[in-house]
Amino acid sequence: MKKIAVIMGSASDLPVVQKAFDVLNEYGVPFEAQVCSAHRTPAEAAEFARSARDNGFGVLIAAAGMAAHLAGALAANCTLPVIGLPVRGGILDGLDALLATVQMPSGIPVATVAVNGAANAALLAIQILALEEPALAEKLDQARQTAAAEVHLRNEELQKSLAAGK
Amino acid sequence: MKKIAVIMGSASDLPVVQKAFDVLNEYGVPFEAQVCSAHRTPAEAAEFARSARDNGFGVLIAAAGMAAHLAGALAANCTLPVIGLPVRGGILDGLDALLATVQMPSGIPVATVAVNGAANAALLAIQILALEEPALAEKLDQARQTAAAEVHLRNEELQKSLAAGK
Amino acid sequence: MKKIAVIMGSASDLPVVQKAFDVLNEYGVPFEAQVCSAHRTPAEAAEFARSARDNGFGVLIAAAGMAAHLAGALAANCTLPVIGLPVRGGILDGLDALLATVQMPSGIPVATVAVNGAANAALLAIQILALEEPALAEKLDQARQTAAAEVHLRNEELQKSLAAGK
Amino acid sequence: MKKIAVIMGSASDLPVVQKAFDVLNEYGVPFEAQVCSAHRTPAEAAEFARSARDNGFGVLIAAAGMAAHLAGALAANCTLPVIGLPVRGGILDGLDALLATVQMPSGIPVATVAVNGAANAALLAIQILALEEPALAEKLDQARQTAAAEVHLRNEELQKSLAAGK
Amino acid sequence: MKKIAVIMGSASDLPVVQKAFDVLNEYGVPFEAQVCSAHRTPAEAAEFARSARDNGFGVLIAAAGMAAHLAGALAANCTLPVIGLPVRGGILDGLDALLATVQMPSGIPVATVAVNGAANAALLAIQILALEEPALAEKLDQARQTAAAEVHLRNEELQKSLAAGK
Amino acid sequence: MKKIAVIMGSASDLPVVQKAFDVLNEYGVPFEAQVCSAHRTPAEAAEFARSARDNGFGVLIAAAGMAAHLAGALAANCTLPVIGLPVRGGILDGLDALLATVQMPSGIPVATVAVNGAANAALLAIQILALEEPALAEKLDQARQTAAAEVHLRNEELQKSLAAGK
Amino acid sequence: MKKIAVIMGSASDLPVVQKAFDVLNEYGVPFEAQVCSAHRTPAEAAEFARSARDNGFGVLIAAAGMAAHLAGALAANCTLPVIGLPVRGGILDGLDALLATVQMPSGIPVATVAVNGAANAALLAIQILALEEPALAEKLDQARQTAAAEVHLRNEELQKSLAAGK
Amino acid sequence: MKKIAVIMGSASDLPVVQKAFDVLNEYGVPFEAQVCSAHRTPAEAAEFARSARDNGFGVLIAAAGMAAHLAGALAANCTLPVIGLPVRGGILDGLDALLATVQMPSGIPVATVAVNGAANAALLAIQILALEEPALAEKLDQARQTAAAEVHLRNEELQKSLAAGK
Repeated sequence: MKKIAVIMGSASDLPVVQKAFDVLNEYGVPFEAQVCSAHRTPAEAAEFARSARDNGFGVLIAAAGMAAHLAGALAANCTLPVIGLPVRGGILDGLDALLATVQMPSGIPVATVAVNGAANAALLAIQILALEEPALAEKLDQARQTAAAEVHLRNEELQKSLAAGK
Repeated sequence: MKKIAVIMGSASDLPVVQKAFDVLNEYGVPFEAQVCSAHRTPAEAAEFARSARDNGFGVLIAAAGMAAHLAGALAANCTLPVIGLPVRGGILDGLDALLATVQMPSGIPVATVAVNGAANAALLAIQILALEEPALAEKLDQARQTAAAEVHLRNEELQKSLAAGK
Repeated sequence: MKKIAVIMGSASDLPVVQKAFDVLNEYGVPFEAQVCSAHRTPAEAAEFARSARDNGFGVLIAAAGMAAHLAGALAANCTLPVIGLPVRGGILDGLDALLATVQMPSGIPVATVAVNGAANAALLAIQILALEEPALAEKLDQARQTAAAEVHLRNEELQKSLAAGK
Repeated sequence: MKKIAVIMGSASDLPVVQKAFDVLNEYGVPFEAQVCSAHRTPAEAAEFARSARDNGFGVLIAAAGMAAHLAGALAANCTLPVIGLPVRGGILDGLDALLATVQMPSGIPVATVAVNGAANAALLAIQILALEEPALAEKLDQARQTAAAEVHLRNEELQKSLAAGK
Repeated sequence: MKKIAVIMGSASDLPVVQKAFDVLNEYGVPFEAQVCSAHRTPAEAAEFARSARDNGFGVLIAAAGMAAHLAGALAANCTLPVIGLPVRGGILDGLDALLATVQMPSGIPVATVAVNGAANAALLAIQILALEEPALAEKLDQARQTAAAEVHLRNEELQKSLAAGK
Repeated sequence: MKKIAVIMGSASDLPVVQKAFDVLNEYGVPFEAQVCSAHRTPAEAAEFARSARDNGFGVLIAAAGMAAHLAGALAANCTLPVIGLPVRGGILDGLDALLATVQMPSGIPVATVAVNGAANAALLAIQILALEEPALAEKLDQARQTAAAEVHLRNEELQKSLAAGK
Repeated sequence: MKKIAVIMGSASDLPVVQKAFDVLNEYGVPFEAQVCSAHRTPAEAAEFARSARDNGFGVLIAAAGMAAHLAGALAANCTLPVIGLPVRGGILDGLDALLATVQMPSGIPVATVAVNGAANAALLAIQILALEEPALAEKLDQARQTAAAEVHLRNEELQKSLAAGK
Repeated sequence: MKKIAVIMGSASDLPVVQKAFDVLNEYGVPFEAQVCSAHRTPAEAAEFARSARDNGFGVLIAAAGMAAHLAGALAANCTLPVIGLPVRGGILDGLDALLATVQMPSGIPVATVAVNGAANAALLAIQILALEEPALAEKLDQARQTAAAEVHLRNEELQKSLAAGK
C-alpha cells in the first residue's frame, strides 16, 4: 500500500494534527510525519515533495496556519494529490489560512479541508488510497454505519430526556 | 480506468464547469456529467452517490454556488473522494459557497478547490486516478514542464519589452 | 393543533436548542424533537421531511452549524415552512452557518433566524401556528406586553440607580 | 384566505420585489403592496403592522436594504409572521442588510430569506398560508415536480451537448 | 444648557454605557437616561424622540447591539443630532451593530462612534453643546492637554524602563 | 451663524462630496471647502483644524477613503465636532475607510456617517447648527414632511401600477 | 548603487506592476524584472532569492495575487528586504492576497504595501536605497513638495469652481 | 550605524512591542523608543518624523491599533522607511488596524508587517540597515540557520514520539 505523508509547518500544529494520526492508525494505513517549514526549511520541503512519489507516498497532507504556504509549496513540487489542512490562528481565525491554502493558481491544485479538520484530511487521504484497496473502502463504509448508529443513540437519549422532562 | 463524474447543481454553472471538461478531455480521462440538484432533485443526487462506486466512478466533482450543499450531499452518500468546486455568485462572491463546501463535519470530507477553480478540480481528480495510472502521472509531470516553459516565454517577452523601453 | 418538529444535526447543538423547547413548552404547543444529521443519516433526514405533513407536523425547525445543510436538506424534501436555526461554531462564528442556511436557491425557501436564536425560532413557529389558533395569538400578544413591562421595570431601576448616584 | 402584505422601504426596491408579486399572482394568493419606510414614514409603518391582523393579513413581507430596519420595525408592532427580505446595495453587498434583518433580539423574530430572494419570500408566505389551504399545498408540491422536471431537461441538453462534443 | 438623553435598548448595555455617564458627570452636563427598546417598546421610543426637542434635549445618544435599530428609530422621529453607539455582541463582534447603526438612508443621519465607544459618544455630545457654551469648549481643550500630559508621563516611564533594561 | 468646513483628502472625492455642497446650499448654510490631505499636506491639515473655531467654523466634515486618516487628523487638532465621511474605494469597498474613520481612540471622537453618505454628513452638520438656529430646525422638520410626502407619492404610483397589472 | 528586483508571479500582473517600473525609471534607480512563479517555477524563484545579494540586488519586490506565496517564497530564501505587493483578483478582492502576503511567521518578514500599490512598492524600495544615497533622499523630499503643490493646485481649482457656482 | 526608532501610539501597546526591543537588543542595533500618539500628541509625532533623518535614524517602526493612524502620520512627515506594526484590539481583531496601516495613498508608503508581528518589524528594520552593515547581514543569515536547526530538532522529537507511539 502507498504511504501517506503528514507534513506540518510547525511543531505547534501537532495538537491539531494528532487527530489525523489517530485516524490513520485506526485504519492501519502506513504514514510518515515531518515537521518541515515552507519558510524556515524551504529547500527541504521542496525536496521532500519532489521525491515523494519515488519514495512510495501516495498522498501528502500539509498542515499550516496564517499565510499558510506549505500545501502550495509541496504541490508546486510534485503531482501527487496534496491535501491542505488550514490551522486556526491568524487574525481571521483560520479563514486567512483557508484562503491561502485553497486559492491556488490554475495547474497546481490543493485539496483543502475545513480549518483544523485533521480527521477529515486523514479520511480524504484514505478515501484516495481506497480506490486501490477494497479493504479500506469497506472500512470506510463501516465507519459511516457506525456514525449513523451514534446518531441513533444520541437520538434515543434525547427522546428519553424529553420524555423525562414532561 | 475508473471514470470521473462531474455533477453540477444547475445548468447555469456550465460556463464555469466547462474548463473541467476541457482538462479531462485533454488528458483523455473518461468522465460523465450530470445536472443534478441537492435541492430540486435530492433523491436522485443521493442515489447517484450511493451507486457511484459500483458504476465505475473513482472520483466525484460537485459544482455548486451560494448555500452550496451539493458536494456535501454527495459525500454524505458515498465514500469515494468528492471534490467540491464552489461557484461564485452569492453575496460574498463565492466565499459563502467556499465555506458551505469546505466546512464539513468530521467523518464526511470534501476535497475543496478554489472558487470557480474548475481546471484544478479536474486536475485533482486526475492526480487521484494517476496513482493507479502511470501514464497519467507522466502527463501531469509534462504539464508542469509546459507551464514552466510558458513562464520562461513570458519572462523573455518581458525582458524584450523592458529592453525596448529603455 | 399541528405539531412542530425540532431537528438538530448533532446532539452537541442541544444546549442551544433547549431554549426552543422551553418556549414551546411555555406556550403549550405540541412538538417532537430529533437528532438527525444531513450528513451522517441523510436518508432518514429526507424521509422525515417527506412524511412530515402527513405525520401531523406544521412547521419544521432545523438547527445546524458550520456548513449547515440540515435546514436545506429538509426543505428540499417537503413544502412545509422550514425554519433554519444557524448554530455558532465555524470559523466565522456562525456567519458561515447563517449563510449556508439562508442563501437557498429559488424555489426552496428556508425561514432563517439569528445565529443561536433558538427562542425566536420557536416563537416564529408559534406565530405560524397562531394563524389557525386564536388562543396562541393572544398569548403572543400578552408576551409582548410582558416584555414591555420588563423594559419599564429595568428603566425604573436605572432611574433609581442614577438618582442614587447623584 | 388571509392576505399577504408586501411592504418595501423604498420604491427603488421594486425591481427586486417584483418577483414576489409574480409568484403570488402565479399561486392566486391575495396580496397588497405598500411603499412605507421605517425611517421616512415610521408612524405609518408601525400603524400598518399594529392593524395588520385585524385587516385580514396573515403574513407580512418586508423588503429593505442597508441598515434594513423595516422588517424589525413591523415585527416590533405585530405578532404575525414577518418575512424579512434583505435587498442588496450597502457596502457589504447585502450582507449588511441580511444581518440588520436577521439578528433580531429574543422575543421579536423575523423570518429571513436570502439577499434579493423575493421569490422565496413569496413562497415562504404561501407555505405558511398553505397550512390552512390544502389547494395551495398541492400547488407547492406540483411546483417541486416542475422544478425537478426542469433539472431533468437541462440534464438531457447537457448529455446531448457532451455527446455532440465527442 | 440643553440636556443630553442617553437611551439604551436593553439594561444589559449598562456596563458599556456607564462610561458615557461618567464623562457627562465629569463635565457637569445635565442628562437623562432611559432603557427604551426599538423592538419591545417601539411606541415609547418614537414618542420620546418626537418630543425630545420640546423637552429641552439637545442631543440623543442611542446604545444598541446586534440588529441595532434604536439610533435609527429615534432619528426617524426627530431632527436633533442622534449619536449612535453600537454595542458589541452580535456574530460579527459589533461590526453588525456598527453597520446597522451607520448605514442610514439619505435624509436621516446618525452620528456613529466606535463600537462600545461610550466615552466618545458623550464627548461628541459635549462638543456639540459646547458650540453654545464657551465654558464647555474650554474644558474640552483642557482635557486634550491632560491627555497629552498622560502620554508624556507614559513616555517618561518607558524611557526609565528602557534605561534600566540596558 | 457659524460656518461649516468641508475638507476632502483628494480632489477625486469631489463627485461624492458634491451632494454635501448641494444640501448646504439648499439650506443656505455658509460653508467653505478645502482639498487638504492628511498625508500630502499634513501640516496644513493640522493648522486648519487648530484655528477652525477661531475662524468661525462650527462643524468640520472630512471626506477620505482607504486608510482614511483625515477626519482623525482634524479631530486630533481641535475640539469642534468633526464629521467623518468615508469614501468608497479601498479593497473592502469602503468598509476599510469606515473603520479607519470610526474606530477612534477614547478622547478623540469622530461622528461617522455611512460610506459615501455626503448628504447625511451635511444634514448632520445642519442639525448641529440648528440647535442655535430655530429657522434651520424648522427647515429640517419640513424636509422630513417632504420626504414622507415623496413616499406617499411613490406608494400611490405603486397602487396604480398594481391595479393596472390585475 | 544596489539594484532593485521586481518579480511578478504571472505576466498577467504586468499592468499593475508597470507603475513600479515608471517610478523606478523616474528616479533613475537600476532595476531588473522577472516573471517567476512560486508555483510554476519554484526552484528558479528560490535560486533567484538565494543569489540576489551576491548579484547586486538590495531590495526585492514581489507581486502576486490570490494565495500570494511569491513574496514569502523569496523571503524564505534570502535576508534582503522583500517588499510584498498583493495583486487584486481573488474572491476577497485582494484582501486574500494581502493576508497571504503579510501574515508571515516570525523570523521571515515581508514588507507589505497596499493591494495593487505598485508605485508605493517602488517608492519604499527607493526609500531603503536612499539610506545610502543622499541624492535619492533629496529626490524623495522634492517629490513630497510636488505632491503638496498638486494638492494646492486642486484646492485652487475647487475654490474657483465653488465661487463660480455661487 | 543608523538608529531605529520604535514609536508606539499608547503605552498599552508595550507588551506587543517588547518583542521588537528583544530582537533589536539581540542584534545589538541602536534604537530609541517613544510613546507618541497620532491623536493625543499629533504635533510631537509630526515633529519627530520631520527631524528623524537629521537625528540619525534610519528606519521608523510605528505600532498602533484600531484606526491605526500612527505609521501613516509619521510617513506623511518624512521619507525614511516607515514600518507599520498593526496591533490587535479593534472589532476586526487587528484586521482593521492592518488595513488602516497598509492602505496608504500613492506617494506615502508604509512597510506593513503582520498584526502583532513585532519581531518581524524589528527584523525588517535590521534587514534594511544590513544593506550597509555586512556584519548584520551575516547575523541574519546565521539566524536562518538557527531557525532551520530548530525545525530539525522539533522533527526529531516528532519522530521519537511517533516511534514511541507505535
